[in-house]
Amino acid sequence: MRRNILLKIQYDGSAFHGWQRQPNVITAQGEVERVLSILCNQEIRIIGTSRTDKGVHALGQIANFSGEFSIPTENIARAANKLLNQAVQILEAREVPLEFHSMSYTKNKTYRYEIVNSSYKNPIHRNFVYYVEKPLNVVKMKEASKYILGTHDFKAFQASGGQEVETTVRTVNSIEIFQDGDRISTEINGDGFLYKMVRNIMGTLIEVGYGKREPQELRDIILSCDRKNAGHTAEPQGLYLKEIFHKDMNI
Amino acid sequence: MRRNILLKIQYDGSAFHGWQRQPNVITAQGEVERVLSILCNQEIRIIGTSRTDKGVHALGQIANFSGEFSIPTENIARAANKLLNQAVQILEAREVPLEFHSMSYTKNKTYRYEIVNSSYKNPIHRNFVYYVEKPLNVVKMKEASKYILGTHDFKAFQASGGQEVETTVRTVNSIEIFQDGDRISTEINGDGFLYKMVRNIMGTLIEVGYGKREPQELRDIILSCDRKNAGHTAEPQGLYLKEIFHKDMNI
Repeated sequence: MRRNILLKIQYDGSAFHGWQRQPNVITAQGEVERVLSILCNQEIRIIGTSRTDKGVHALGQIANFSGEFSIPTENIARAANKLLNQAVQILEAREVPLEFHSMSYTKNKTYRYEIVNSSYKNPIHRNFVYYVEKPLNVVKMKEASKYILGTHDFKAFQASGGQEVETTVRTVNSIEIFQDGDRISTEINGDGFLYKMVRNIMGTLIEVGYGKREPQELRDIILSCDRKNAGHTAEPQGLYLKEIFHKDMNI
Repeated sequence: MRRNILLKIQYDGSAFHGWQRQPNVITAQGEVERVLSILCNQEIRIIGTSRTDKGVHALGQIANFSGEFSIPTENIARAANKLLNQAVQILEAREVPLEFHSMSYTKNKTYRYEIVNSSYKNPIHRNFVYYVEKPLNVVKMKEASKYILGTHDFKAFQASGGQEVETTVRTVNSIEIFQDGDRISTEINGDGFLYKMVRNIMGTLIEVGYGKREPQELRDIILSCDRKNAGHTAEPQGLYLKEIFHKDMNI
């Protein structure tokens, strides 16, 4: 009988050339497909929700695949994790209705971005945070972040080179910035994000933080729809795909 | 004028073939020497306090080097960190009396060992903790750890293959085990440690934790002076050289 399996996947982005399968380089998707193909005794192709870039981590990437195979669903994660490169692991595998498709059924996603505001770069954390040397004013960053909230045309924060999109209008449901000592963590939830949008927003907020821009400039940057007006692209290793929420179908 | 410079060094052990300089492979010592040789315009050899193994991290390795060179002491760390592989960085460089020698002046050292007691291995942490799947009884591990305290012949915990040592008697000043959710952290301070002694102690405490051994067996293991009686060698990636304390000479 045909089954549709939802996977929750975590990976260390520093070990992969991004999520998406590519010839001749190791990617998170390619590695998971390699191992599932062994376990299911057939070529498996999985559909991931988000194409994370090289260096970007995932705490909760969601993917699905369907087919007829004998391995019990409850054994998939454990069996796969033994065979997988340890830099990518399956946190959970469960059966979902056949109609479920991880991209089409996405309701919204949360990304997390980790900054450490320090001129010294701890080698233990180098692949997992973005070190910003100039002192950051978090109050101003929070003020600037409010302009991001809501439904806007986010073209100014879209990098070139991504997939073609029908519209550059997106809705940001929440953006929260927490400070703990020299660590500044941001969580942003939205219905979808343009290519490198989170990193471009973060680069812009960081520039507000060190005084290159004023918080209220964010409004004009958005309205301009011009990438040149926004800030730099924050480094990939600070970014985590944290959680993906799906449309209600009792999954 | 001849200067003697003390360095406090941090590194991610997963990026190196250990601390000690070796031909044809990248080591933390070799990398620091390469960069200091550029900055000092002469071949620099540094003396490290602890020869950590491949995979073992350092939060506070201490090394020193002396010579005549023009770079001001206060510029060394910053200049070196720009040139160094980011997996090793100099936290601090300062001038110390010429007689100071990082090995001879060591009073005691603190190592930290990180265990996560979980069958699921988070890929983000894979190079930084030892995942132990079997449930661990931390109360029993703490009970067992008390036998380690004090001055003993620790030959039972010495791995073969290290440097020759005059005596296998060492003093453990403190050993503390903390639990926070599924994370179990151990800090052990001693005047010195035999080759792989901390990892062999940890492997033995872990075996107490999952019930293979009773806490009081530690006493007999130590008295036996026989490596075969102790437990397995805990994985290197859980081990951190945390801090080195030196004999008082106002440094």
